[in-house]
Amino acid sequence: MREAYHVELEQLAEHLAAMSVQVAEAMELATKALLEVDLGLAEQVISDDAKVDDARADCEEQAYALLALQAPVATDLRTVLAAIHAAESLERMGDLALHVAKAARRRHPEPVLPESVRPYFAEMGDFAVKLARRTEEVIKTKDVAAARTLESDDDQVDDIHRHLFSVIMDRDWPHGVATAVDVTLLGRFYERFADHAVSVARRMVFVVTGKMPGYGPETDEL
Amino acid sequence: MREAYHVELEQLAEHLAAMSVQVAEAMELATKALLEVDLGLAEQVISDDAKVDDARADCEEQAYALLALQAPVATDLRTVLAAIHAAESLERMGDLALHVAKAARRRHPEPVLPESVRPYFAEMGDFAVKLARRTEEVIKTKDVAAARTLESDDDQVDDIHRHLFSVIMDRDWPHGVATAVDVTLLGRFYERFADHAVSVARRMVFVVTGKMPGYGPETDEL
Repeated sequence: MREAYHVELEQLAEHLAAMSVQVAEAMELATKALLEVDLGLAEQVISDDAKVDDARADCEEQAYALLALQAPVATDLRTVLAAIHAAESLERMGDLALHVAKAARRRHPEPVLPESVRPYFAEMGDFAVKLARRTEEVIKTKDVAAARTLESDDDQVDDIHRHLFSVIMDRDWPHGVATAVDVTLLGRFYERFADHAVSVARRMVFVVTGKMPGYGPETDEL
Repeated sequence: MREAYHVELEQLAEHLAAMSVQVAEAMELATKALLEVDLGLAEQVISDDAKVDDARADCEEQAYALLALQAPVATDLRTVLAAIHAAESLERMGDLALHVAKAARRRHPEPVLPESVRPYFAEMGDFAVKLARRTEEVIKTKDVAAARTLESDDDQVDDIHRHLFSVIMDRDWPHGVATAVDVTLLGRFYERFADHAVSVARRMVFVVTGKMPGYGPETDEL
């Protein structure tokens, strides 16, 4: 039975790793759609989101089956519950990529972003994709050190995000209120995406170290 | 053992109901702090948020204990997992009330909201508090019909939220970009709070009906 348990847990981890790849790709395409004003890419991200939702439902079902059939206890139980939480965060990351794609579609053929803030989004997009890919790596390798590097990448996203706000809030912002509102929400989507990646990584650290992750300081207020 | 299981499950439900009350109160005070530019109330919400985080950790521990000691299967297992998800959503609702309070504190003694949008926030605040209180009721009574009314209240919040956006986006918006950004984010906090309340209620419908809640259409894009 312990053997079966570990095989099934390994399969669950593979599912989660595949979800990380899905949401990394979704965010990569969504960012490209946003920066290059590409309606086709935006539509692709929007129609692919259902696959992320399905993958999450599959992960939950697999976790349920594991709990029901193997009745794990102690660290094994916590590991399965960490996987359920991770699947929830990954689905949410997919939703946030979806929101970026929908914003690109909503304003098409106009660009959502004025030229002056494009570099911020290019950079936040790079970090977001990198965070999701590193999440995959952490799930696969259970490398605690790699998990911790996600926190510093997330700090970088927070820095860019704060800087972006100071640009929008500047009294010389020339692009008007409607654009500021779009840029504000988009900035928040990237910042939340990065937060969720960190949350998945923390759960994985717990899986390896057996220490319950703290719920951490709130970093998403802006 | 089944008897012990049901007593423990009942206690877990009571904990979740108490968390709903906590977050309803947090959102009520945060909204008051926002509308009445009351720094003391904002500070109170900010310092009380740790209690919500603790309550969530307690719920998770209780759920872990229940799973480890009772090894529930079938609907009993799904019920405990629904409770774990509900605790996560309730903690997030507490965070969103915290964000509202922090916005009120950040601009103090200036009001965050211009006079013209105060009624929208008064109304969204009322609905948010009502939704959290109804969540408590649904958890306590397991009344499926009551759970479904949350969805229509959430639709109302979405309507107010959309209307608020049309006000901010209007080219005659006279309050400048910085205020528009604050109002945009605050609107989103209320909208997300209501979404999470619905998500808790859906999980409770599942607990009663045994049907897995759908992940639902995305309603939070703006």
